Amino acid sequence: MHIELINTGHELLLGRVLNTHQQWICRQLADLGYEVNRQTCVPDDGASIQEAVREALGRSDLVLTTGGLGPTSDDLTRELIAQLLGRPLLLDTSILAGIEQYFKRRHGVMAESARVQAMVPEGARVLHNANGTAPGLAIELNPNPFLGGKRSWLILLPGPPRELRPMFLESVVPLVLAEFPQTAKFSSRTLKTTGLGESLVEEKIAAPLRPLVVRGLELGYCARIGEVEVRLSARGPNAEKIISEAEAIVRERLRSLIFGENDATLEQTVVAMLVEQRNTVALAESCTGGFIAHRLTNVPGASAVLKCGLVTYSNDSKIELLGVSELSIAQYGAVSEVVAREMAEGALRRCKTDYAIAVTGIAGPGGGSKEKPVGTVFIALADADGTVVKQKLNPFDRETFKSVTSQQALDLLRRRMLSQDSSEGL
Amino acid sequence: MHIELINTGHELLLGRVLNTHQQWICRQLADLGYEVNRQTCVPDDGASIQEAVREALGRSDLVLTTGGLGPTSDDLTRELIAQLLGRPLLLDTSILAGIEQYFKRRHGVMAESARVQAMVPEGARVLHNANGTAPGLAIELNPNPFLGGKRSWLILLPGPPRELRPMFLESVVPLVLAEFPQTAKFSSRTLKTTGLGESLVEEKIAAPLRPLVVRGLELGYCARIGEVEVRLSARGPNAEKIISEAEAIVRERLRSLIFGENDATLEQTVVAMLVEQRNTVALAESCTGGFIAHRLTNVPGASAVLKCGLVTYSNDSKIELLGVSELSIAQYGAVSEVVAREMAEGALRRCKTDYAIAVTGIAGPGGGSKEKPVGTVFIALADADGTVVKQKLNPFDRETFKSVTSQQALDLLRRRMLSQDSSEGL
Repeated sequence: MHIELINTGHELLLGRVLNTHQQWICRQLADLGYEVNRQTCVPDDGASIQEAVREALGRSDLVLTTGGLGPTSDDLTRELIAQLLGRPLLLDTSILAGIEQYFKRRHGVMAESARVQAMVPEGARVLHNANGTAPGLAIELNPNPFLGGKRSWLILLPGPPRELRPMFLESVVPLVLAEFPQTAKFSSRTLKTTGLGESLVEEKIAAPLRPLVVRGLELGYCARIGEVEVRLSARGPNAEKIISEAEAIVRERLRSLIFGENDATLEQTVVAMLVEQRNTVALAESCTGGFIAHRLTNVPGASAVLKCGLVTYSNDSKIELLGVSELSIAQYGAVSEVVAREMAEGALRRCKTDYAIAVTGIAGPGGGSKEKPVGTVFIALADADGTVVKQKLNPFDRETFKSVTSQQALDLLRRRMLSQDSSEGL
Repeated sequence: MHIELINTGHELLLGRVLNTHQQWICRQLADLGYEVNRQTCVPDDGASIQEAVREALGRSDLVLTTGGLGPTSDDLTRELIAQLLGRPLLLDTSILAGIEQYFKRRHGVMAESARVQAMVPEGARVLHNANGTAPGLAIELNPNPFLGGKRSWLILLPGPPRELRPMFLESVVPLVLAEFPQTAKFSSRTLKTTGLGESLVEEKIAAPLRPLVVRGLELGYCARIGEVEVRLSARGPNAEKIISEAEAIVRERLRSLIFGENDATLEQTVVAMLVEQRNTVALAESCTGGFIAHRLTNVPGASAVLKCGLVTYSNDSKIELLGVSELSIAQYGAVSEVVAREMAEGALRRCKTDYAIAVTGIAGPGGGSKEKPVGTVFIALADADGTVVKQKLNPFDRETFKSVTSQQALDLLRRRMLSQDSSEGL
């Protein structure tokens, strides 16, 4: 089966927007056992879109496009595709009613240009957009005139990720599974780890997994900021068995480095553990500037476990809100083990929680010194049993610094909750 | 001039890695007035790479590839291109010496496989790699056999961003400027707006800009969460003049909806205004969970203006940390105009800042009611002159809710600082 993805948009080729659709869509399909064979990005002008779609249809069973379904004058995909396929565009009154409804709920008035989103190429299946006005469109080409009369599908998706993603999961995945059933069994599992780099993770598991690779296991690594994913996949009648055996080996070798499966995030794991243990946490963030609070509150249900977060950027706020001693700041500096400890203990006391995490460091670009270079950070975890403080060096750009540091802080709490030596692998 | 970019790599099409090269390279070229006309991503197998390069050379003056120049078994680009062009690969002894040097400095021993990186297609120009072992290669095709004997360039770049980016700036930019001098002047400007949707922004400016479009103005819109970009560009001797006139019209029509130019973010604008006015701000966040603090602290220098941020998720913390009245919570609910006002005023008083922003709402997915559905949010802004509270409905998924709400909150502060009616356009 041959699949192509076409991303449309002038802004992509001008480099104004990062194309996150490619990774996301390819990843969803890969997890189901489908591989995208080519991805193309073209500007949203008539000739380019039609040429790219025609070429892709000449090679593919399935072509997906993103973008160009909105109401403005550079949203041309719908019209160009209808023209390319020689299908008239028909007004779908139920879509139009939905768009009118959408505007009524928000701005009170529908721009006349929004009407075009209710136009549907004849014979297309409409994919509901739960988060916007432009529906997706799925067109069966049977026969596909560009591929010698074979049957193909062409699916048009809207550009905004918050519209595209739910639509993909709710409508495209079932369509693909129904229209292109897997001929061989496919199984895959991703284990997510934190605390070790990619090559060290590989070193721990590559040799013991080798016999399974011979039997058909595909092994992939993906390093992201502060985490490494191990992806196990296999095809054929023994796929499930191979994956189970591989997972057992990886879990045995990596143990508590693994924090979750598939799409789990570290913050989801931490919130779930806190909920299960009926414990609460407080945060005292300096250099991470609210990012740990942000990550935890991205998890539905976080309100039950995160009692409060304090972003104490200034010395004054460390002293007033957390009870850090002025003397400690003067003597050791705001970025120090002593101040990190006092911040965590202050947050624990004032917020009356079971755990408190504190972070103080130098995010940069300025503020470093010879003894404490940019990237220096102290992470403290306090609970009724006492306080531990870890020193780290994360010499990265500002946003990467926040990501890595928040990962280390959340992992410190996770390991404490696992009742393990909190220094293992950190 | 026609330019194409080809990214190679299986991991890209499996969705394991985000393709950041596309945005980065396209952006560098766009800033110099060159537009990439198509980008393609193919897996690193022989047929796919050769097919994609052949097709691109059949359309292009300049083709750039990324990836596949390293020493491992899936690094095939160099060899496949040499084969496609019918040029022998010759050992370049000075590159080999450099690679040996590189290994000596690091690992002490050069793997035999690294030798392949010193092989150069006959006639290619070598692009120095300051951060790795694989040099880039620039090949002049004069004539280009795939484009009727026209002259084209094919440039091969390594995959790792920290190798590719310096090489691009040091070697590729000068080559492109020398080989493809701009024939017409190019000028572009992007104005960033918040407070209105894409179609309403277009409705305000499309008609008045029409005469300039006739004279060569290119107009592009890009909608992101909570903001719409308007991109103006033009080519030719009058480019600068057309852009200036267009900018004046857009500014006159959109006025304070515009918060910045080109790459500016709303948080950068807000921090810059606070710094300039020597004012400070405190945050009291409930439903945004630290995201406003996170955005502000992504801006270097934020520590001078953000005195403290309080993430008061629980009622207790609203009462204890902000001095919100228990009675108000009981009477009106934690998500109410009254509580938002008390949160902002409490933060202003306790943190002793010039401004305080408070946000309380229902992020969902649970917690909504008939009177206060999921997405309901109250945003308060307090300063010495008093407090305003805005009610919004942002019925989105959790992360989008946070993004939109934080954008509205930051914009409320921006508008207050502009000393304008803070309700305009919100």
